[in-house]
Amino acid sequence: MRLPFTKMHGLGNDFVVFDATRAPLALSEEQLRFVGDRRFGIGADQILVVERPQGPDADFRYRIFNGATGEEVEHCGNGARCFMRFVREKGLSDRDEVRVETMNNRIVLRMQADGRVTVDMNQPILEPARVPFDPSGLQPRLENGAELWPLANPAAPQEQVEVAVVSMGNPHAVQRVDDVDSAPVAQVGPWVESHPRFARKVNAGFLQVVARDRVRLRVYERGAGETLACGTGACAAVVAGIRLGWLDARVDVETRGGELTIEWDGPGSSVRMTGPAVTVFDGEVRLPDAR
Amino acid sequence: MRLPFTKMHGLGNDFVVFDATRAPLALSEEQLRFVGDRRFGIGADQILVVERPQGPDADFRYRIFNGATGEEVEHCGNGARCFMRFVREKGLSDRDEVRVETMNNRIVLRMQADGRVTVDMNQPILEPARVPFDPSGLQPRLENGAELWPLANPAAPQEQVEVAVVSMGNPHAVQRVDDVDSAPVAQVGPWVESHPRFARKVNAGFLQVVARDRVRLRVYERGAGETLACGTGACAAVVAGIRLGWLDARVDVETRGGELTIEWDGPGSSVRMTGPAVTVFDGEVRLPDAR
Repeated sequence: MRLPFTKMHGLGNDFVVFDATRAPLALSEEQLRFVGDRRFGIGADQILVVERPQGPDADFRYRIFNGATGEEVEHCGNGARCFMRFVREKGLSDRDEVRVETMNNRIVLRMQADGRVTVDMNQPILEPARVPFDPSGLQPRLENGAELWPLANPAAPQEQVEVAVVSMGNPHAVQRVDDVDSAPVAQVGPWVESHPRFARKVNAGFLQVVARDRVRLRVYERGAGETLACGTGACAAVVAGIRLGWLDARVDVETRGGELTIEWDGPGSSVRMTGPAVTVFDGEVRLPDAR
Repeated sequence: MRLPFTKMHGLGNDFVVFDATRAPLALSEEQLRFVGDRRFGIGADQILVVERPQGPDADFRYRIFNGATGEEVEHCGNGARCFMRFVREKGLSDRDEVRVETMNNRIVLRMQADGRVTVDMNQPILEPARVPFDPSGLQPRLENGAELWPLANPAAPQEQVEVAVVSMGNPHAVQRVDDVDSAPVAQVGPWVESHPRFARKVNAGFLQVVARDRVRLRVYERGAGETLACGTGACAAVVAGIRLGWLDARVDVETRGGELTIEWDGPGSSVRMTGPAVTVFDGEVRLPDAR
């Protein structure tokens, strides 16, 4: 089977995008893993499939699959920006504002005059049980009235970190560090990711506060390891930093892949994320048949 | 600039291939690094540029560039097989046998009925000075009349290995191991690669002899680290094993990316390598302008 696709990235978080608005596309997990494979296939962190909406109040639906496992995954901010640029460039929509259904969310996307895309990321989820995070028996430390939870490495209980817990549709555990460059992301990330208090695992964020309107961030992502940039991770880290009294309502976030701007007006408001989306190339792949 | 390309691989050693037979193509090192970049660009170990021959006795010329550095590099067996498949699939040649100029060599390629490609890899270079390898002051151990050279880690001189030294147009240092799976490739590879006795660095091969006609191989490549498969590395390892009396004249080589067949009839003969070449997708990239 020959299949057209577009390769895109948002801050180096890269996507293979398929247009399934004209004809349905059902790829097997094996085919999705082939697409995600950087040497034997096309190569991408995630695969994004653009579909027609299922409900009445949306313009599109999209699904995201992990490029390494082929599993369907939750909403991703960098993917949302690439989706917006894709539907505009391919002539699937001429609107500046597009409403879209994802696996677990509805979001609104806006194309800015400078080519950056603003994603309405909905409200953060702050109740631990809904993240999901199990705080039973833990005593949080409060800053500015917000919780920092002590988390111990199950394999080495003397190794402890303090995390703020936020869901942006996917779960995040954010810890503050003095310097992201020297933060032990590769060592701490894996055990935080798989900590038993997070029933669906968690993305581990490492946040350095540079000023009240500027932070630096690294994220160890569930199932992917450290990535160049994580859109929902930037939202979660800024929400946590605002609640804890460290940050103002509009913050520029430096990641290894580039810069995002995150805005949040506090509880009851949606998080808005603005950042770049880049189309690298269009291609046509020879897909192995599904078995 | 928009530029058509084809993504291919030989045993997982992957290439972006450009056709420059119709119009010349001069990419800057920065553009080549962009092409090689797996997240911000297309992504490949190497970039292969197919050109018209410069001399009278060849059908084509091709050049290979390192995808990480953009530097022009020497002949590569996996690349040669992909080159052959490319010129046939794109209709640039309808011959079963094609003669080609590379940076430092002339080679003959043959398309087999099963779709595998046989590469005439020319004769191995066995004189140390021409590898180049400086054996001054070293005492080799002989097996079957062939040299095994002691090599010490300059940073930890008690750490020693024994290597056979062979050039296939690029330099190789091959050491025998009991089991490639447990061989310390990531630890030993870097210091062998940069050992001062190899003036142009060296590819470090780790060879497990399974039978006289079957080996398993891992290679730590110059400037690339461990790769899934290295065509010249397989040739060099089999030549070394035949000279040292461990192997017969036709050997199947298992690498992490798949299998190659290597044939060598001894000094004065060319090495023949047969293996797969796969086209994954065709694309058109938006190349950043050269600065």
